[in-house]
Amino acid sequence: MAIARAVSKSASIAQPVSESAGAKTAAAKPVQQVTAAEMGARQREISVSEFFTKNRHLLGFDNPRKALLTCVKEAVDNALDACEEAGILPEVTVKLEVVSPGEPVAPSQATRFRITVTDNGPGIVRQHIPRIFAKLLYGSKFHRMRMSRGQQGIGISAAGMYGQLTTGKPVKIISRTGPKATAHYFEVQIDTKKNEPLVHENKQIEWNQPQGTQVAIEVEGKYQKGRASVDEWLEQTSIANPHVRLIYSPPEGEVKEYPRTYHELPPSPREIMPHPYGIEFGMLLKMLQDTKGHSVSSFLSGDFCRVSPQLADEICKAAKVSPNMKPRDLKGPAAEILYQTIQNTKIMAPPTNCLSPIGERAILSGLYKQIKGEFYTAVSRPPAVYRGNPFIIEAGLAFGHRPEDQTKPKQPAMPKAEGEDDDRDSELARVIRYANRVPLLYQQSACSTFKAVLSTGWKNYGVTQSRGALPGGPMVIFVHMASVWVPFTSESKEAIADYDEIQKEITLALRECGRRLGLFLRRRERAASEFRRRNIFELYIEEVVEACNRLKGGTLAKEKLKAQLQKIATSRTGGLKTDEALGKTGAGPEGLPHSIIVTADGVEGEVELATQVQASVAPAAQTAIAAPHKADPAVPKGKKGKASQPAVVVDRGATDKKPKGKPAKPGKKAAPRGKK
Amino acid sequence: MAIARAVSKSASIAQPVSESAGAKTAAAKPVQQVTAAEMGARQREISVSEFFTKNRHLLGFDNPRKALLTCVKEAVDNALDACEEAGILPEVTVKLEVVSPGEPVAPSQATRFRITVTDNGPGIVRQHIPRIFAKLLYGSKFHRMRMSRGQQGIGISAAGMYGQLTTGKPVKIISRTGPKATAHYFEVQIDTKKNEPLVHENKQIEWNQPQGTQVAIEVEGKYQKGRASVDEWLEQTSIANPHVRLIYSPPEGEVKEYPRTYHELPPSPREIMPHPYGIEFGMLLKMLQDTKGHSVSSFLSGDFCRVSPQLADEICKAAKVSPNMKPRDLKGPAAEILYQTIQNTKIMAPPTNCLSPIGERAILSGLYKQIKGEFYTAVSRPPAVYRGNPFIIEAGLAFGHRPEDQTKPKQPAMPKAEGEDDDRDSELARVIRYANRVPLLYQQSACSTFKAVLSTGWKNYGVTQSRGALPGGPMVIFVHMASVWVPFTSESKEAIADYDEIQKEITLALRECGRRLGLFLRRRERAASEFRRRNIFELYIEEVVEACNRLKGGTLAKEKLKAQLQKIATSRTGGLKTDEALGKTGAGPEGLPHSIIVTADGVEGEVELATQVQASVAPAAQTAIAAPHKADPAVPKGKKGKASQPAVVVDRGATDKKPKGKPAKPGKKAAPRGKK
Repeated sequence: MAIARAVSKSASIAQPVSESAGAKTAAAKPVQQVTAAEMGARQREISVSEFFTKNRHLLGFDNPRKALLTCVKEAVDNALDACEEAGILPEVTVKLEVVSPGEPVAPSQATRFRITVTDNGPGIVRQHIPRIFAKLLYGSKFHRMRMSRGQQGIGISAAGMYGQLTTGKPVKIISRTGPKATAHYFEVQIDTKKNEPLVHENKQIEWNQPQGTQVAIEVEGKYQKGRASVDEWLEQTSIANPHVRLIYSPPEGEVKEYPRTYHELPPSPREIMPHPYGIEFGMLLKMLQDTKGHSVSSFLSGDFCRVSPQLADEICKAAKVSPNMKPRDLKGPAAEILYQTIQNTKIMAPPTNCLSPIGERAILSGLYKQIKGEFYTAVSRPPAVYRGNPFIIEAGLAFGHRPEDQTKPKQPAMPKAEGEDDDRDSELARVIRYANRVPLLYQQSACSTFKAVLSTGWKNYGVTQSRGALPGGPMVIFVHMASVWVPFTSESKEAIADYDEIQKEITLALRECGRRLGLFLRRRERAASEFRRRNIFELYIEEVVEACNRLKGGTLAKEKLKAQLQKIATSRTGGLKTDEALGKTGAGPEGLPHSIIVTADGVEGEVELATQVQASVAPAAQTAIAAPHKADPAVPKGKKGKASQPAVVVDRGATDKKPKGKPAKPGKKAAPRGKK
Repeated sequence: MAIARAVSKSASIAQPVSESAGAKTAAAKPVQQVTAAEMGARQREISVSEFFTKNRHLLGFDNPRKALLTCVKEAVDNALDACEEAGILPEVTVKLEVVSPGEPVAPSQATRFRITVTDNGPGIVRQHIPRIFAKLLYGSKFHRMRMSRGQQGIGISAAGMYGQLTTGKPVKIISRTGPKATAHYFEVQIDTKKNEPLVHENKQIEWNQPQGTQVAIEVEGKYQKGRASVDEWLEQTSIANPHVRLIYSPPEGEVKEYPRTYHELPPSPREIMPHPYGIEFGMLLKMLQDTKGHSVSSFLSGDFCRVSPQLADEICKAAKVSPNMKPRDLKGPAAEILYQTIQNTKIMAPPTNCLSPIGERAILSGLYKQIKGEFYTAVSRPPAVYRGNPFIIEAGLAFGHRPEDQTKPKQPAMPKAEGEDDDRDSELARVIRYANRVPLLYQQSACSTFKAVLSTGWKNYGVTQSRGALPGGPMVIFVHMASVWVPFTSESKEAIADYDEIQKEITLALRECGRRLGLFLRRRERAASEFRRRNIFELYIEEVVEACNRLKGGTLAKEKLKAQLQKIATSRTGGLKTDEALGKTGAGPEGLPHSIIVTADGVEGEVELATQVQASVAPAAQTAIAAPHKADPAVPKGKKGKASQPAVVVDRGATDKKPKGKPAKPGKKAAPRGKK
């Protein structure tokens, strides 16, 4: 009755003006006063699709160029997640085509593209296809505490929604769950008012692929190479995912293959329970209501990680809650005391097998494959925790020019105008950032990783750096954060938020990389100066030997004396250490674990890794796109890698006997090792 | 049947591993391979509440201090929107209290607060209360094209959700729709799994307020004054909303009142139809399906603004579509041609009565009230359009110190350490940014307004500016964007996205402000030097007159000569112009519309406005918080302002006769005007 009263009251007040409100014509008349009832009548539910259609810049669809990248990114992320979860070494084909209804248009001028991404993953069961591709906030990853590229259940359906909005075309999906299953073809769109899928087409088809998924989206976009382009994103993806074979067919030019250089899957991350330190009070209250545990004690030990039944009882005792109390009955102040007690109890950090770091060897492999440098190193930090979420930071470096590039005649420098500086910008280091193996291309300066690079004192490691700027190059700095929940600053997942714990770990990883780089640079410098001294010694050895021989009347054991003098020269000029730094011993340089050094004479450090990369890269050039899914015989299905892979830690005892890595351009490096 | 096949296939493949997956214990075992069926079984819908709980930093709940501000902001925005829409001059009370279960805690140490916001608005009809306060994406503003502070239907329920998450407490609401209606009291929470409200309490109560709404939320937070604080936000709100009476009861210290200094409501904005240039192709397709129009022609003229029936027919003709065709039947290529035709047709810009700019006088009023300066000016640009959305940019300036502050003895400067600079930072201008009258406090550097301030050449206007930096102070720069849809860079509404059209309008507004400031500064400089010359003249006039008198043997008409000589002196030293710049004529300085100049002698320019502000500010100090809702007899209900307000454009013909504005501190300014 109270309801009716309130409504009728306000309705009667509303009477005089209600006629003039609501209809379109009313907009022209001055509406004097609107009542609560009228306002109430306008209240409506907003579907999440409507919300993100209007706010699509929040999801990375700010402008046509970025939109094209976002669509590629979401489709590739999904493909890789699916393959890895199913224990399949991923092979992904990305195809960009210009769509133009009339005459053909140059890709740089085109405004509409078809993006087709095909994987060799497990496929998708038919019933789930419509909602996976045409319903926002639907997916398997949001509720799990387990590392994956996708987090939200928004990405791929948002890409489809953007296509629908700009071209009116549905998303086209082919999926096959195995060689004995039928392939299914779907065309789906989103009903944005309801955030539910509309299926336009649904049939069985023949598909020449035994297993996998293909998704095609037509969108308005702009194709342009360079920074933050599709090309750059795929290249960086390949660096952090050397276990992926990636075939890219750009809208113009040749098909590009990023070969697989690391032939094992990353260890599959496990799902974990939430850690008690990571939840808020309100969340605890909700879990108490939702739990399947019959007692507070079994709730604590069953629904959280790192809480043993014994610890659960201890917590109950300290909080003065009966361990056998029903969780549902625990409310109000008693629940609050329990919460405080949990926060004050010492609990082991969460397990970290929910994470799958790239690993130092794979990072080295990726950097060595894509970047032509002189020194490479990689660091994986031990796991750490922020807000109850475990995470791991990894960093890497690729520094300098290849020796063969250093000796190339440089372009004659243009005469400079007065006051003109060297173009320092191009000489700054480049930072490549990753979160759960996905490259981050936008909002660099907002990212925790970038801030950590700036605040590291690179001068200590022998690299130039202006105040508040990136260190000098040529250098590529690689930073990766792996976590069950990466705290992005926006839904479009472009930058990592600035938590102290994260910042600290990144800084520690960068310092270790910097320390190794400094060691390398100092040794190279020392070796170079010792090498110059040795050369001078050696110049005179012949003459000294000849002179001695003449004095002795030609009876001297010339060769013996020469060898002895050379031995003295070598030991006086740094001995083996110089040889090592000069790349003459084949042993990994001391104090530089997980590093590769490229010298004019070959590769040092993780030699086998480098050899393997070069072997994979060489034939890739000839691979035709026609067979993107050729079976890889070396696929180890889900096995822990180390065993199936030859150990790459170089035996320090061995000297010159180890085979050198094949140089990428054999012609140039065929010179014999000694320069004498 | 096809469904069953696909499922059973994958299910049979899944068999060997399915036992080990899913259950918690499985997490420890290595899962070799997951099939499509298993993955499918994990797919789940994610409620928007769950999404924003986990991603609450996206809504402005990054940290406890910002969370406290966000809650206040959302509650006050809602209160102001409701009052204005109902045509009521808003009176809003904001109360922050420390909540501590045990001993009292100092506000700076407290971690939990109760925020209570009360307004004199229209109230909320009972049935809508639960969903308005405890359901995300529910509201009246999202689907309308009309300027308002709220846009999304997220804000206040997100604040409630944050409170629930951190303190477990429900949101408490009191609402009364009029003096004859009953007041209702609610306690609501969100069921985050379903994004639906849970009503814990719902009863009729006695409330001493005749009409309005009160919302109380208990949250974890941190109270700290200074930049980006609740205090700063309320102060800035008061500047841009001089028609609001705002009473603020901070957790410590005295109640503060921001009085109403502008006694008329902003003109109520109208709702408009979308403009044809502002929609994407996919949106047009959807509108064609959803329209109530029976023909394409009536659809075009009925569902868009600025499309007359005649223009609709022309568009149909050009697109080769029958005007009488049913909208639902228009699809595919034909629809695309229609879309292209619309984009190529010349259509009038959208109407702008959907906007409610603050207006130059109200901006002046707000700036004058809150900032103690020497020169004030304000500019409202004509409406412009981005992506089919009309918008208006307004800018303002408050420059310099009050004359009485200039003469104050300055703090003795501390001796500086060698190499230490003046603290230039504190001397930089401050930018205060607004979107639809709401102050923006975070992410300044990402905001279009800030970029426009940086790129304006302030040196041209006589203000210092380093490259890439803000201009020198003391100066406050005010920028406001009013639009039916402000393109924010994030849901937390902290910065305006960088559209070219917006950037251009802001720049033009700032230049006009700068130009006026430059004019003022040059005149003040010239006047000061003329004043010095005149002083010297005048020093000698007495002596000259005496000397002449002696020559004439005492027969001279001394007074007449003196007056004549003074007239000459005045005209030789800039005459009236100097008087004007010195504040001696009472007329608005030429070429400086919508400006206030404060001199040692009083106020120039928009004198009445200044007088009015001072009159409102003076008694505010004595107002007790006990009667926050005293009726304001001067409320003009919904009338267009100008008529009910005395004209403030000063009559240029009149000279010294106009009454001066009362100085804020009467004692200091009581000196007679002429200094002679």
